[in-house]
Amino acid sequence: MTAGRPRGRPSRADGEDRRAAILTVARRQFAAKGYRATSLRAIATEAGVDVSLIGHYFGGKSPLLVATMQLPIDPVEKISSVLAGGPDGLAERLLTTFLDAWDPHRDVFSSLIRTTLGSEGEQAPLLDVAREVLVAGVAGVLDGQDRELRAELVASQLIGMATMRYVARLEPIADATAESVVRLLAPAMQHVIDG
Amino acid sequence: MTAGRPRGRPSRADGEDRRAAILTVARRQFAAKGYRATSLRAIATEAGVDVSLIGHYFGGKSPLLVATMQLPIDPVEKISSVLAGGPDGLAERLLTTFLDAWDPHRDVFSSLIRTTLGSEGEQAPLLDVAREVLVAGVAGVLDGQDRELRAELVASQLIGMATMRYVARLEPIADATAESVVRLLAPAMQHVIDG
Repeated sequence: MTAGRPRGRPSRADGEDRRAAILTVARRQFAAKGYRATSLRAIATEAGVDVSLIGHYFGGKSPLLVATMQLPIDPVEKISSVLAGGPDGLAERLLTTFLDAWDPHRDVFSSLIRTTLGSEGEQAPLLDVAREVLVAGVAGVLDGQDRELRAELVASQLIGMATMRYVARLEPIADATAESVVRLLAPAMQHVIDG
Repeated sequence: MTAGRPRGRPSRADGEDRRAAILTVARRQFAAKGYRATSLRAIATEAGVDVSLIGHYFGGKSPLLVATMQLPIDPVEKISSVLAGGPDGLAERLLTTFLDAWDPHRDVFSSLIRTTLGSEGEQAPLLDVAREVLVAGVAGVLDGQDRELRAELVASQLIGMATMRYVARLEPIADATAESVVRLLAPAMQHVIDG
């Protein structure tokens, strides 16, 4: 807290400053220590705010991570709404939502993948999002055995497809309609979801 | 041809020199122009050999590309033997053979993926191998419609799985047994193969 200011709801200008300060500190700590080793408390301390303010602004640690990445879409919100429908038809909803969200931003996705996979040894925020948002979310709605492994195989099919389409840009997958990709891949992905 | 040498089968020492010269030139031309824009004739001319000698030593353009990469396994040979069995059970053979070949060399695979995806704008030999050996090979044994697109989706499932296992190294997929990966992923991949 800023010395000398009374406690209570911050004014709008203060709020924006604090939100920005939290993001700056979070981005640096996630990059330096990785997602798991970074605590909201350490971020709050360095940013000079109460830890409850991070929950107030961002809703938790994984949405905070996503916010630091300044993505053109909000994967937490997208995946939450896709998962809300449960495992039935999940592959089709996941693929349709993913392609609808990322097809217009394929260069951003490509740059994210290149940065993530091109930098050995460094912390990779995209991997943390894949694990904490996509894999954890999918694992949470699966039934049966090997839920974590199956959720990772679902994620690997999504990321593999996106890598061929957006990063490697092989034809015909780079320019195939989203509908044809969904039609051909969704039944296979659903197979892993059904287990 | 070296000036003054009679035509005919080269001596062993000459053969090794020429093989090495072809590889050096091919590696440089593939890197500079990419696989498709590079001709065996241009490689032969720069290496100072008859173009038929490339066929004699390497068997063709895509095996020449693979030879320039100095991989710990020969993907052309592996994929050929997997494809020889036709589309029935292809996913299981492909995954088993792939994991058997690359699990002991996961660091090499990781480095190949990082180099390929980390270097925007440059030619990427691994992508050429994926397209010319894996995708073209799988497309050649598929029946029905969208064979190229389905072959690319099969390749994307294989590469996505390998990226999670060898490059991102997420648990539990990084240390899952090959058998469990095959058991969970092969039926999904076979679904794309069957169309």
